[in-house]
Amino acid sequence: MALYPSLEDMKIDVMVRAQVAQQHTIRDASAQYNHPNAIIPTAPSYAVYPALGDYMGLELSEDVIAHNMPEYRVQVAQPAPTTYTNMIAPISSQSVSLSKATVTGAIRQVVMCKDRDGKCGLRLHSVNSGVFICYVEAGSPAALAGLRFGDQILEINNVSLAGLTMEQSHAILKKAPTNGITMAVRDRPFERTITLHKDSLGHVGFQFKDGNIVGLVKDSSAARNGLLTDHQLLEINTINVVGMKDKEISKVIDESPSVVNVTVIPQYIYKHMINKMSTSLFKALDRNPAL
Amino acid sequence: MALYPSLEDMKIDVMVRAQVAQQHTIRDASAQYNHPNAIIPTAPSYAVYPALGDYMGLELSEDVIAHNMPEYRVQVAQPAPTTYTNMIAPISSQSVSLSKATVTGAIRQVVMCKDRDGKCGLRLHSVNSGVFICYVEAGSPAALAGLRFGDQILEINNVSLAGLTMEQSHAILKKAPTNGITMAVRDRPFERTITLHKDSLGHVGFQFKDGNIVGLVKDSSAARNGLLTDHQLLEINTINVVGMKDKEISKVIDESPSVVNVTVIPQYIYKHMINKMSTSLFKALDRNPAL
Repeated sequence: MALYPSLEDMKIDVMVRAQVAQQHTIRDASAQYNHPNAIIPTAPSYAVYPALGDYMGLELSEDVIAHNMPEYRVQVAQPAPTTYTNMIAPISSQSVSLSKATVTGAIRQVVMCKDRDGKCGLRLHSVNSGVFICYVEAGSPAALAGLRFGDQILEINNVSLAGLTMEQSHAILKKAPTNGITMAVRDRPFERTITLHKDSLGHVGFQFKDGNIVGLVKDSSAARNGLLTDHQLLEINTINVVGMKDKEISKVIDESPSVVNVTVIPQYIYKHMINKMSTSLFKALDRNPAL
Repeated sequence: MALYPSLEDMKIDVMVRAQVAQQHTIRDASAQYNHPNAIIPTAPSYAVYPALGDYMGLELSEDVIAHNMPEYRVQVAQPAPTTYTNMIAPISSQSVSLSKATVTGAIRQVVMCKDRDGKCGLRLHSVNSGVFICYVEAGSPAALAGLRFGDQILEINNVSLAGLTMEQSHAILKKAPTNGITMAVRDRPFERTITLHKDSLGHVGFQFKDGNIVGLVKDSSAARNGLLTDHQLLEINTINVVGMKDKEISKVIDESPSVVNVTVIPQYIYKHMINKMSTSLFKALDRNPAL
């Protein structure tokens, strides 16, 4: 079963497949008439009905017809480029940020160090017995290691964090050695990425207030692709927009290419995760696109 | 960057890679001494320092040494099987249900019909301006089409469902023709799958009440893999457990192979989605493993 990042991709791929299938049919049919050594196919139907050549001893095989009536030859359509056959995501695959923005929920290993002040540039928050990253400082070792808002930390130096509080996990980070901090990280479990396409006016079709999606425009790409309201914008084409002012977020969207990958998280989880963070922290957030 | 479905997979793969890397080093080193026609490699260092054979006219090439001192030959370790090199997910990849259970959040096309009573066997519910499947009847056309609890329906016969209420979307389904109902479906946006491994006692390490995860066992696979509390169990190895009694769910887990793929949804979204469903409906739910 084919899976597509956006509805636009699905529609175009379905059209392309239909077109290729049709061209193949034309080519197969015409190939039969044109091949000089064409053998009449032994389809099961021939057992029930006599073939044209067998009927009443008439010599009406394709060879004889083609030889006597050159105009009978059907002009072969140019064979369709076969590169389409396995094509998935005809539009969005051109978007470089798609694979970087995609949330997999899988586990990866991260090796990190501390900076010269002995800091990682990381703040954690516990949600439902799990420990999540709620803050990554710009230029810090954590940012360079590719950690992002919403990543769940499972282990630090082989110590499991399940059930620990925010304070306990911060203490583990603090006690960790300066070099070779090994972590097992689950890729942003609560988040998901939705791929949208700008229309001719450059709009994707959703309204937001304080980064929270509050409304969808009818028949826009956001509505078609099933973007949900009451979700917080976290990334736009892998640029972190947490804590940004709405005007700045609009600017990020305006400057995006025509394919816009939006990462969102349900509002109630977001509220919970930034619960104990002061707003002044947001200014030092890592805003660089993901590596 | 390698991504793994579970922490156990990551640990084993990291170990296997370390072992393979070490064996390659041994093999490379020993191959140099053992090869009968070994040519002294022209490494850049040879430009700076003279090679052993060139030095003072001594015949100390590997060949001469090996010929005169058989004990010099280093015993070659058996070459490591090279199939490991690109290996990801060494344990869980043996689980057939992993790919079926994985939630992608991508869009697919579904073509469905109605049964002889004119029903699809489907109930919808609207959450945050999106329309979601909250019920699939066993043996119904919807079950055969592979629709599942939590799938978001974006379009029915090219009519977008964004912003529609439950009643409006049910009316669209009712008005649809008997054959060729085409739908665009986003694969279970709120859900995610976590891969767990049974320990020697057959436990995965979480407690649940009415299908809701309420506690984790310390140092169990569930705790290591970052399973979260306050999440509702939806599927266990692609078997739908929505509305099942806790005893029955325990039985499904007991009968699972050693790799258990658990699909969960945050409790508050689950509560919202089954909000208007009567409990008697649960008896007719589609329980078959996903196709």
